[in-house]
Amino acid sequence: MKVTSTTKKIISYYTHENVGVRSNLMRMLGQGKLGGTGRMIILPVDQGFEHGPDRSFAVNPPAYDPNYHHQLAIDAGLSAYAAPLGLLQTSSDSFHGQIPTILKINSSNTLATSLDQAVTGSIDDALKLGCAAIGFTIYPGSDHNFSLMEEYRELSHEAKAKGLAVVLWAYARGTNISKKGETAMNIISYAAHMSALLGANIIKVKLPSDFLEEDPTKALKERVAHIKKVAFEGKRLVVFSGGDAKDDNALMEEIKAIHLGGGNGSIIGRNCFQRTREDSLTLLDQMIQIYKSK
Amino acid sequence: MKVTSTTKKIISYYTHENVGVRSNLMRMLGQGKLGGTGRMIILPVDQGFEHGPDRSFAVNPPAYDPNYHHQLAIDAGLSAYAAPLGLLQTSSDSFHGQIPTILKINSSNTLATSLDQAVTGSIDDALKLGCAAIGFTIYPGSDHNFSLMEEYRELSHEAKAKGLAVVLWAYARGTNISKKGETAMNIISYAAHMSALLGANIIKVKLPSDFLEEDPTKALKERVAHIKKVAFEGKRLVVFSGGDAKDDNALMEEIKAIHLGGGNGSIIGRNCFQRTREDSLTLLDQMIQIYKSK
Amino acid sequence: MKVTSTTKKIISYYTHENVGVRSNLMRMLGQGKLGGTGRMIILPVDQGFEHGPDRSFAVNPPAYDPNYHHQLAIDAGLSAYAAPLGLLQTSSDSFHGQIPTILKINSSNTLATSLDQAVTGSIDDALKLGCAAIGFTIYPGSDHNFSLMEEYRELSHEAKAKGLAVVLWAYARGTNISKKGETAMNIISYAAHMSALLGANIIKVKLPSDFLEEDPTKALKERVAHIKKVAFEGKRLVVFSGGDAKDDNALMEEIKAIHLGGGNGSIIGRNCFQRTREDSLTLLDQMIQIYKSK
Amino acid sequence: MKVTSTTKKIISYYTHENVGVRSNLMRMLGQGKLGGTGRMIILPVDQGFEHGPDRSFAVNPPAYDPNYHHQLAIDAGLSAYAAPLGLLQTSSDSFHGQIPTILKINSSNTLATSLDQAVTGSIDDALKLGCAAIGFTIYPGSDHNFSLMEEYRELSHEAKAKGLAVVLWAYARGTNISKKGETAMNIISYAAHMSALLGANIIKVKLPSDFLEEDPTKALKERVAHIKKVAFEGKRLVVFSGGDAKDDNALMEEIKAIHLGGGNGSIIGRNCFQRTREDSLTLLDQMIQIYKSK
Amino acid sequence: MKVTSTTKKIISYYTHENVGVRSNLMRMLGQGKLGGTGRMIILPVDQGFEHGPDRSFAVNPPAYDPNYHHQLAIDAGLSAYAAPLGLLQTSSDSFHGQIPTILKINSSNTLATSLDQAVTGSIDDALKLGCAAIGFTIYPGSDHNFSLMEEYRELSHEAKAKGLAVVLWAYARGTNISKKGETAMNIISYAAHMSALLGANIIKVKLPSDFLEEDPTKALKERVAHIKKVAFEGKRLVVFSGGDAKDDNALMEEIKAIHLGGGNGSIIGRNCFQRTREDSLTLLDQMIQIYKSK
Repeated sequence: MKVTSTTKKIISYYTHENVGVRSNLMRMLGQGKLGGTGRMIILPVDQGFEHGPDRSFAVNPPAYDPNYHHQLAIDAGLSAYAAPLGLLQTSSDSFHGQIPTILKINSSNTLATSLDQAVTGSIDDALKLGCAAIGFTIYPGSDHNFSLMEEYRELSHEAKAKGLAVVLWAYARGTNISKKGETAMNIISYAAHMSALLGANIIKVKLPSDFLEEDPTKALKERVAHIKKVAFEGKRLVVFSGGDAKDDNALMEEIKAIHLGGGNGSIIGRNCFQRTREDSLTLLDQMIQIYKSK
Repeated sequence: MKVTSTTKKIISYYTHENVGVRSNLMRMLGQGKLGGTGRMIILPVDQGFEHGPDRSFAVNPPAYDPNYHHQLAIDAGLSAYAAPLGLLQTSSDSFHGQIPTILKINSSNTLATSLDQAVTGSIDDALKLGCAAIGFTIYPGSDHNFSLMEEYRELSHEAKAKGLAVVLWAYARGTNISKKGETAMNIISYAAHMSALLGANIIKVKLPSDFLEEDPTKALKERVAHIKKVAFEGKRLVVFSGGDAKDDNALMEEIKAIHLGGGNGSIIGRNCFQRTREDSLTLLDQMIQIYKSK
Repeated sequence: MKVTSTTKKIISYYTHENVGVRSNLMRMLGQGKLGGTGRMIILPVDQGFEHGPDRSFAVNPPAYDPNYHHQLAIDAGLSAYAAPLGLLQTSSDSFHGQIPTILKINSSNTLATSLDQAVTGSIDDALKLGCAAIGFTIYPGSDHNFSLMEEYRELSHEAKAKGLAVVLWAYARGTNISKKGETAMNIISYAAHMSALLGANIIKVKLPSDFLEEDPTKALKERVAHIKKVAFEGKRLVVFSGGDAKDDNALMEEIKAIHLGGGNGSIIGRNCFQRTREDSLTLLDQMIQIYKSK
Repeated sequence: MKVTSTTKKIISYYTHENVGVRSNLMRMLGQGKLGGTGRMIILPVDQGFEHGPDRSFAVNPPAYDPNYHHQLAIDAGLSAYAAPLGLLQTSSDSFHGQIPTILKINSSNTLATSLDQAVTGSIDDALKLGCAAIGFTIYPGSDHNFSLMEEYRELSHEAKAKGLAVVLWAYARGTNISKKGETAMNIISYAAHMSALLGANIIKVKLPSDFLEEDPTKALKERVAHIKKVAFEGKRLVVFSGGDAKDDNALMEEIKAIHLGGGNGSIIGRNCFQRTREDSLTLLDQMIQIYKSK
Repeated sequence: MKVTSTTKKIISYYTHENVGVRSNLMRMLGQGKLGGTGRMIILPVDQGFEHGPDRSFAVNPPAYDPNYHHQLAIDAGLSAYAAPLGLLQTSSDSFHGQIPTILKINSSNTLATSLDQAVTGSIDDALKLGCAAIGFTIYPGSDHNFSLMEEYRELSHEAKAKGLAVVLWAYARGTNISKKGETAMNIISYAAHMSALLGANIIKVKLPSDFLEEDPTKALKERVAHIKKVAFEGKRLVVFSGGDAKDDNALMEEIKAIHLGGGNGSIIGRNCFQRTREDSLTLLDQMIQIYKSK
């Protein structure tokens, strides 16, 4: 685990958390090729739950195997691996802490008739699996807005009391928000700020678009910088999703913008497992090189 | 109880469970004529609850007696017997563990006005009755999608902590899913994968049809093999329902496809108790012979 | 308390219950003029809650007094007296266990806007009042179908753990069931079977009519016999309601049919308290003579 | 505290309650100018919650002060003073048990969009404030019919276990009940009987009108006598509301009818605090004289 | 901490609370430039949650930093600083009790589809952060009217048991209340009175307007005095919101009216942080001078 003045400074913003939580944050910040840089790349594999196994893995059949992802996250030198209960139960005994893991503790699916999530794991599950953190999704804007936040409050309270860090996936969605509006600057900004107010240790939002912005010429890196600003003047870790699968050049432009804007990194799933292992390792290394540059 | 390298290998995929859970899985895999083969036939008698006693038993009146089924499962050399609380309360004292039992812990009925289930038993009931496992039904696609998953999470957590295995019946149903869609390949695949992600030890789904599949010429055995693949590259036990009563030849074709596709067996109710005991024993023996073949 | 081979045999079907529960069943089966016959007459006075005091008692004003009913049940030599909390609180201190009592633990009323019941007593209330059992109503077919069953499960679990027997009132009702359908053979059969599956010790249903039956010439006694059959091949106690007040001859025909069909007796309220005490004692004695005949 | 054979007799109907509950009932029956008569006048000041402070107190500004009411109840020689949490918190330290107090533990308001109440105090609050009883409102007929009764059951159970008496305000209201129907004889009778069945120690209903009665010539005192009858043949304490403010003669006619009909007294708020203290003391004394007459 | 006969008198109205609660009230009344005057200015920064970060802070970018507000409240000599969990977690370790803090324990947001709040912190969070009080919002008039009051009851009960004071934000809103009606005299009066009945220690309402008042010539200071009157004849602390940002003269007229009417001060957010720090300090000092005048 690589500890630097950069990561010490980040941890210094979390003195309200106990030593267990701060240690788990430090584990993730010290892990892999980005260890010590203050940047993170997290591999999330919740697509099988959220979109179904075939839409997620058919293009790259080895990805049906839970061990594939856990191994890939290690081999690529990433910061952490996040997945729902069943995946971590299956793979964790083969890797014994070689990479920090995040139990994604609630999940949705495309068959559902409401914009909600089911809690599908417990804090004790996370502890038994040796996780460093839990992950939770809220949908500000949905009819379950408040109940999701209250579930989050209870689970994050228990998680932190037991020394686990908390990652909050904040996706504003609902009948009053258009598809384009979901990534509008003000909406992403609002979601990130609420996440910070809710006490999240790591905030995960989508990249803000230029939709409806007053000054659409503002560059993506500036939008990223603004999201860091609403996260308590940069005092909270903010990572961005890779979004829909896109061509690699477009993706690298986004990574550069996150890097230049001071974002803390990426949570990137489909762009990793929907290509071959070789291609995936190449892609992740390119991302890492960007995040390691000065 | 017959223990073989085949069943040891299956159990090796469950190292995240405690010894009690693994022992109960081994009990079911080691039981009866299929003991040690890695295949299972489970007799479920929840039709009286789900469809009513007369629609279920009138064609074979001895089946009104709870002991009839328990005895049949033993005599046919099956792997386990699954039933709701009242049936197991009535028969279990006559058979004292001669076959592993599964307490079907939630139930629906045709009089209901919503697509939901009531929890009708407890983990402590299962323990007092000497059960090896509990069975739970979820309906992905129903308006109770998330609450059923959360009930499952709590009950399965308690069951496993007390050494019981967990069988998950996963039936995708709801206003957005057509009757034919309920058994479409992608839907069964999604249901099986979610069950694995939810931490189920044994997954019970319907046989996938060729409805809406891109390549309808693909054989049933290949569809079965795919369902095993989405269940964590085959690392989870998957059994299939016998479905609606049909003629025996059609049924045997399905059993062969399950066998060749690597499925772990059948949960078959109506085809057993809606014929005479003699016919039922004959039929089950035919199924067993298929599953025992190389 | 009269114990006979008949009642010993009935109790032998309840070995899954603890000695406390079985003892309370034996108390009711051994009580009064039908003691030891395996038949029971239970006086239920929940009409004041379900229909209002004036519709229930105005025709026989002494019935406004809680002690009236408790005394009547003793004097008539009945098997048990069932009533909601307030009635048992008022009368029980005058009779100190001279007859087993059943706390009717949930109640509805005609002012309600939904087909549901409120839990109006607790297991501890039943214990403090010296009761032998609790009584609970479910409405399969109502929108509260599943929640009523789950309330039942929790209360019956606690009751049995504390040695109380459980009587289940099962009335199929709801938007999809016509008034005539509520007593159709298949519906009563379904309700009785679900009650047995839910683990009820004594099942209370309405008498099945010949509505919609394939063979309407089948006699009432045969319908009664079928209800006993669906109650686990006769292994559960089943008692029938007296239904709407009717002329005495019609009522006695029904009692004979219950007797000949092997039903375990009657729960009869309005026909008792909506006439004078003298008439009521006469009527109950006639019923008892039928149930005592060979 | 005045104890008489009359109040001893009343208490003898409550042997199902513990000594604490019976002692608190005796405290209220022994208090003030009506001590020992078996009659009670209770001053309730929940109008500020139910109707707003200005509609309640503007006509008599001293009534804005919580101490005003508590003092008035003492000075007028009443039986008890009932109020929500905030009022009792403010005044109780000035009067130290000079009059029994009743914590009105749930409350509604005219801004609400549903016919329900919020629980706004706890049993422990009542104990800390030295109360003799709690008061609770149910609305049979509302969509919250059953949930209100279940809340009542839990709170009354806890209150009694801790030695507090329980007063039940029973107001039948809802979409199926007309404004006039709310005070119809049968409806008040039903509400009073349900309250007794629910185990209330003191029942509070509105005075029944002659609306829809078969024999409208029946006098009010006879209607009062009937309400006492449905309250378990007179074995429960029943007090009546003063209703809408009306002229004093009309009010005294009602008090006489309650007295002659055997009602146990009045719960009267607006007629007390919506006039000057002097007028109020005069009015209450007139009521007391009626209730003290033979 | 400045203690005067004025603040001792205020505290004397709270003898129903334990010493811990009273000490925390005294801490706030003794703090800053208004210490000992019985007046308070509280800085609330919940706008980022309620309205979003950019609508709140874009006009004064330093306000994105949590420490900015905490520092401002200290430097301006205010009475307390109120904020949601995340803000207090971030800043509290830099200021160690230099000013009492209030954990705003529930929060809403403009993306929500219902008029409700989510509980976003716990009493234990408040204790760990060294807070003097919690703040809670109710919406009388919303469909969540009763559930918000019940959540408040539980949280305030726990808070007080652990020695924390309770501030209640009472905003009447809902489908039956017009925008103008929300600040009508009678509505604010009702909200303040309900808050007092609910046991709040400090009541926060909007300034009442002259909308729909019978005598619209009545001055604002008289309306303020009336609100104090409905808060138990002045025995409860009542503070008023600054409302929408307005020009400074208009604001100072309001402050004077609060002062002359006997209101206990202001909770003022947007008027503070939506201008530069210098302007803000000037404005707050002007307010303080008014509240300190005789």
